[in-house]
Amino acid sequence: MSLGSYGEFGLIERIRAQVAGRDDVLVGIGDDCCATMLPPGEVLLTTTDLLIEEIHFRRAWTDFFALGCKAVAVNISDIAAMGGTPRTLSLGLGLPADLCPEDFDQLIAGILTAAQEYGAVLSGGDTCRSPAGLLLSVTVQGSSKPEEVLRRSGARVGDLLYVSGTLGDSALVLRELLTGRTPPAELAGRHHQPTARLRLGQELAQRRLATALIDLSDGLRADLGHILTASGIGARVDAASLPLSPTFRTALAIEPSLLDLALAGGEDYELLWSAPPVAAPALAALGTELGLPLTCIGEIVAAAGLHVVAADGEEIISSKVGYNHFS
Amino acid sequence: MSLGSYGEFGLIERIRAQVAGRDDVLVGIGDDCCATMLPPGEVLLTTTDLLIEEIHFRRAWTDFFALGCKAVAVNISDIAAMGGTPRTLSLGLGLPADLCPEDFDQLIAGILTAAQEYGAVLSGGDTCRSPAGLLLSVTVQGSSKPEEVLRRSGARVGDLLYVSGTLGDSALVLRELLTGRTPPAELAGRHHQPTARLRLGQELAQRRLATALIDLSDGLRADLGHILTASGIGARVDAASLPLSPTFRTALAIEPSLLDLALAGGEDYELLWSAPPVAAPALAALGTELGLPLTCIGEIVAAAGLHVVAADGEEIISSKVGYNHFS
Repeated sequence: MSLGSYGEFGLIERIRAQVAGRDDVLVGIGDDCCATMLPPGEVLLTTTDLLIEEIHFRRAWTDFFALGCKAVAVNISDIAAMGGTPRTLSLGLGLPADLCPEDFDQLIAGILTAAQEYGAVLSGGDTCRSPAGLLLSVTVQGSSKPEEVLRRSGARVGDLLYVSGTLGDSALVLRELLTGRTPPAELAGRHHQPTARLRLGQELAQRRLATALIDLSDGLRADLGHILTASGIGARVDAASLPLSPTFRTALAIEPSLLDLALAGGEDYELLWSAPPVAAPALAALGTELGLPLTCIGEIVAAAGLHVVAADGEEIISSKVGYNHFS
Repeated sequence: MSLGSYGEFGLIERIRAQVAGRDDVLVGIGDDCCATMLPPGEVLLTTTDLLIEEIHFRRAWTDFFALGCKAVAVNISDIAAMGGTPRTLSLGLGLPADLCPEDFDQLIAGILTAAQEYGAVLSGGDTCRSPAGLLLSVTVQGSSKPEEVLRRSGARVGDLLYVSGTLGDSALVLRELLTGRTPPAELAGRHHQPTARLRLGQELAQRRLATALIDLSDGLRADLGHILTASGIGARVDAASLPLSPTFRTALAIEPSLLDLALAGGEDYELLWSAPPVAAPALAALGTELGLPLTCIGEIVAAAGLHVVAADGEEIISSKVGYNHFS
């Protein structure tokens, strides 16, 4: 049984049958557009991410359920990075001829499961053949009270810099895969099925505990660079303070250059934000409440640029910059 | 000079620099999400279309400016088919390594020109490498008063069926291209740079002149089929009444089987709708006002299915169905 035997509308119907109705969806899958409603007075947040086979993933390394979850989570992470609430999801699917129905079903199951987990509903999209590999284009729409929207541009000199979770785990997994080794099992999920820090982003916005916020998709160095550029300031980061998982720390002790992965490896999908020092106790309480480490890794300074300082005070010049799709 | 030398953020900046601010865009290109505002009380309309090289277009046949315009127009056509007003556009771009900066710039110029023409603004997206050909994923967001949203499901027995413009021109151009001939110059634009019937869709909604509405992307037969399925009724179409351009009509006289292209060829991007007979005078006036032929091609009947009838009363069985991406 090949995917082609379902036909385009058969595939759409196969998806539609699994999506439950929702009060905020006036017109769902199966019309020219979906028609949805936002809470009155809220602004619309929109983010799009492409996931292209051989660029963002390899079929040999991932399972389709996890890939579906990841395609949703990387977009939800962007909604989280504005402090918003996810609402709807539009899915563009380019399907290669050799994709089998079981893999298609697993992919859709992953997308629908993750969407539901984060409170979003699949409301429409487009499905067609792809001449090369599998490609997914996910657009997630969310909303936020206008006064709670958290941008990259609000960091001020004297603010502390915080990051959630641990850094470099996803990049370490990818490094192992690329070199043909088996990644540490306890870290594999950080790369294949990352968690968007949605609740954290929302609490930072609602409790006014951040002046600027971004999610870490291109690596700490590049994404912090975006905050610095947008805010027109600099930052000092203490390398010794970077939050690392036990597995990553063990690997780092053997191979010190792995620090580059924590500083510049991509796909952490943690949040990075600046906050005034007065917010520190509230952030400590929030970390406890969420069961998620929230770590101060440095501070915002007037001197332009990013200064990463080792424990001995020496400034580290990392040779690796954030992931650039065209470098 | 290669596109890669700009880098991912250089390309985004190259686009961002060309996009003017707008009152309804709180946060535009260059943050985790864009944040935009809809008119109070209106519902959000969303549509996504993928355009994939070798599936939807061939680089040898098109110019990049026209391709950019088309990528926008095919989405605007979906907003028109709900009776809505376009607002914002999110652009996913997968760029092959061999794309040159001049072609990239032309593509973006086409996208921005068409967006402006239809009243939408580019507010965000994603840019990455593509291992195979060029791919575009365009999501257009619009809005509508909830009571004016026009669905596919409202057609009633006794309604007349109307279509705008002329049918089959785009499919005729494609047929000529596929067979290695030069398409008629006066029709080429119908395929390469189609016009979305936005104003028509809006007037149909605001003047309450349609009970069901769809845009013709997959061909009359398939798209009318969507209305019939959604509305749970049938239709009789008079083949002799199909609106055809002079060029198409000349070709049809020589090659009668071209009628299939008018009945089932894709990418007309005209609107198809049902309306009660009492709306006929108002529709005639609207056609004059818009300078666009609005032609009655048949009627909605109780008998299920689509019945296309020739001038002599014989029922035509077209061998060609609407375009199915997986057939």
